[in-house]
Formats: sequence, structure tokens, C-alpha cells
Amino acid sequence: MSEVSSTAGRRAEDPWSPEEARTRFRAGWRVPTAGLCPGWTQANLLCLPREYAYDFLLFAQRNPRACPVLDVTEPGETAAALFAGDLRTDLPAYRVYRDGELVAEVDEVTAHWRADLVSFLVGCSFTFEAALLAVGVPVRHLEVGRNVPMYRTDRECRPAGRLAGPLVVSMRPVPAELVPTAARVTARYPAVHGAPVHVGEPARLGIADLDRPDFGDPVPVRPGELPVFWACGVTPQAAVMRSRPPFAIAHAPGHMAVTDARDAEFQLP
Amino acid sequence: MSEVSSTAGRRAEDPWSPEEARTRFRAGWRVPTAGLCPGWTQANLLCLPREYAYDFLLFAQRNPRACPVLDVTEPGETAAALFAGDLRTDLPAYRVYRDGELVAEVDEVTAHWRADLVSFLVGCSFTFEAALLAVGVPVRHLEVGRNVPMYRTDRECRPAGRLAGPLVVSMRPVPAELVPTAARVTARYPAVHGAPVHVGEPARLGIADLDRPDFGDPVPVRPGELPVFWACGVTPQAAVMRSRPPFAIAHAPGHMAVTDARDAEFQLP
Repeated sequence: MSEVSSTAGRRAEDPWSPEEARTRFRAGWRVPTAGLCPGWTQANLLCLPREYAYDFLLFAQRNPRACPVLDVTEPGETAAALFAGDLRTDLPAYRVYRDGELVAEVDEVTAHWRADLVSFLVGCSFTFEAALLAVGVPVRHLEVGRNVPMYRTDRECRPAGRLAGPLVVSMRPVPAELVPTAARVTARYPAVHGAPVHVGEPARLGIADLDRPDFGDPVPVRPGELPVFWACGVTPQAAVMRSRPPFAIAHAPGHMAVTDARDAEFQLP
Repeated sequence: MSEVSSTAGRRAEDPWSPEEARTRFRAGWRVPTAGLCPGWTQANLLCLPREYAYDFLLFAQRNPRACPVLDVTEPGETAAALFAGDLRTDLPAYRVYRDGELVAEVDEVTAHWRADLVSFLVGCSFTFEAALLAVGVPVRHLEVGRNVPMYRTDRECRPAGRLAGPLVVSMRPVPAELVPTAARVTARYPAVHGAPVHVGEPARLGIADLDRPDFGDPVPVRPGELPVFWACGVTPQAAVMRSRPPFAIAHAPGHMAVTDARDAEFQLP
């Protein structure tokens, strides 16, 4: 299940710049991006035809915990204000959807690109992981070198136009005594999903088995730890799967756009 | 210049509910709404034809300080999730624009309503005035019973689609020693414009004369006070005037939609 290649060197004392990481992704390197380029903001990608752009922007306005929009391109544009690279090639992996069905998981989407695609960059919780580590909250998927586990919940997002779907969450096991700290620290980052949406009872979110995430990899929850759930930027992809727009491109879950924005820009005063 | 009618009773110890205030507005009462229904969130209104709705939502995403969107209706809807009244009649005053020109300022817009209008409720800085008063920061327009002064600046918003225009700001005179407090307190309310955008030098914003606001009433700036400027939800109207969509309805500046949301919902943790 793990999609992780060697992590050697990527969290060295001299970490790569976003441009350096993007150059490697463009060359075909494929790896979950958690922990990469610390201090630089990572983002979910969703590209939809212009005629769906209003529905998605409204969906995001109505579901801000799951879909904090950081940037929006003009139709057909391949760079964004926060992303100086090429959106078609500079993420580690992409998913292509037709009528809501996953039709390809690929390293680049140049051949799939269309002039009417509007690209949305949506905040990603990887952004606050450095802040969690800084206050002593462990981040299990970094420790074990896996992709973060993500789950479809039974919570419905507020629909918008033709788009509807379930809330998707990411999960990090947190020692019980550090749960309040984790909530407090991440609450300061509302543009990257903010405080947790749920603590400790996966069944209450409709999650039957933590060891079988819908996206990403399972990680161990150890004695004395609670599973803590944050709204996840894969929620837009779940809406695509449910709502079946004719065409969409997204990042492969956990394989994010590394932007040129600094994490600190999305931290509250 | 003042549009203020008697304020007797409206800030009594038993203040009106939003529904009570809306009932009075529906009956024709016309008054700036600052200080009314304390604890209840007030909002700017902009109604645009559906074909302009994406441009405006994108304009708001790109200019979040000036245009924090709190709620969006379906086309033609006359109520909103946060506003149980009738958007056509339950604000104290409206402005109607055709091709960017102000063609009417009226108490209700039933005769102007169209089935394709999408209504946007945008956060209003009146929401944080109770928090300012609570920490001892005076609010001059409340003291003198006037509408808040608002000014077009020479700062351009980031354009979106067919919409462009200047940043509009509201101004409150603040004693110099309380400026940091005013900044700190209002920073906790990003959904209603948040921290000030400028302090003390109106000319640096392209404001020639504080005594001649573009919207609302002038208020006195006293010795030892600095003019403090916050991004203002009249910015969308300035974009309408500049960009000339075929039709738009907005609140009359300072005459807001009193919503059913609580101020505390928009305060940061």
C-alpha cells in the first residue's frame, strides 16, 4: 500500500526550496510530500472546467474547514500567484477523473490539459505539522515514513450547485495529554484546515476501520494515544467522485503542490 | 449630510432581536445600523446577476480583507442561511445600480428584484465595534450618532474576471495609546475585515480630506487621536461602479443587513 520511495536526504539540514522540489517532481520523482520543504506551504490541487468553477468556489465558501481556497487561476493558466512552477508537471503525482471515475494516476498531466481548466489550490494540513512538532506533538506518518491516512466520513458537506459529497478527514494519533495542545496549535491555521473536527471516536464519523483508510496509508495508534481528525483537502476529490463533473484533475492524495508561500503567512496573529 | 433619524430606544437595555429590527426596517424605518442589535452580526449586501456571480466570488477570494463572504444565496432566493428575513425589504436602505450608475436609493427593492440575482452577504466592521468598546476604545460615529465615514482609496483591489475597483476603507479615530489595542482586538475578527489596513496618514491612502468621506458622514478626529482605517464592505459597490455590470443591488452604505448570526461566531479562538 505504501507509495513512499526513499526519503533519504529530503529532510536534511539544508532542505530544498520549493523550486528544487518541483524540479525533482518534474523529472519523475514520486513521493508523499509531508515533511518536505519545511516552512513552505503545501496545497491540494483541483482543476475543473470553467463551467464548474463557480459551483466549486461556492462549495468551498460553504465548507471552509475542508476547502480553504488559497489561490485560483484564470482558465487554462498553468501557474498560479502562489505557485511559480507548472501545475501540469510539478506535483509528484496526479489523478484524472472523467464523469467522476478515476481514469488515470500519472506523474504529469500535460496530455490531459485543457484550455478551460480553472485550477484551485486548497490549503493542506501538512502546513501545520512543523508547528505540531515544534510543541512536541508527534506526527506519526512522518515518523514511520508513510503517507497520512485519510478517510471518507458520513458527514455531508453543504452542497453547492452540482457539487456534493462527504467530508474527508486526515488522522494523526496524538498522546491523550497532548490533544488540547494539538487543537490549540492547529486552530491558529484556519487556512490550512485549522482545529480538529473530531477526537477519539472514529465510529462517530462513520469510519469503520482505522487500518483501512480510503486514501493514503494506515499508521499505528499506540496505547495512550487518541486518533485526532482534521478536515482534509481531499474533500473536493470526494465531491468529484460523487458529483461526476465531466472532467477533473487533482493531485494524488498526499502528493501535494509545494507552493512559494510561507507557512507563517497562514498563521493567525 | 447626516442620514440619522432618532436613535431613541434602539440601544436600550433590552435591545431588539434581529427579527424585531428587520420588522421595523420593513415598515420603512431608515437608520444607519451601527450599534443596533449588539451581539448580532451585521453584513454588507451585494446582489448580482448569476452570470457575474463567479467573478464576484473570485474577487472576494482575492481580496479577503475587504470582501469576507459570510453567505451566498441560490439565484433568486430572498432569504439566506444567516438571514431569515426578506433580503428585498428588511434592510433600512438599498442602492440600485444599472451599468454601474446609481439609479435609485430606496427603502425596499421588490420592484427591482430579478430571478437571476445571487445575493452575497459580506462581513461588516460594525461587528467588532462592541469588542472595541469593551476594551475602552471609543467608537466616534456611535458617540456622535452618525454613519461611519468611508473613503475610496488609491489602492487597487486584485481584479477578477470583469470586476475591478479600489479598496474602500472605514475610519475610526482612536487615541494614539489605544491604537495597538484596537489593532489587536480587531485582528481577532478576520471575517469582518480584521485588523486595520492603515493608521494615521490618510494621504498615503489617497484620501485628500477626512471631512469629505465618499460614503457616510464625517466625524471629528480630536487632538491625540489618529485616524485608523479598516477595509470596508462597500468595496464591492466601488467595484460595481468601476466595472459596470448591467445590474446590481446593494445596501446603502452603513445601512446593513442585520443577520441571525452571533458576532462570537466570527471571533477567532
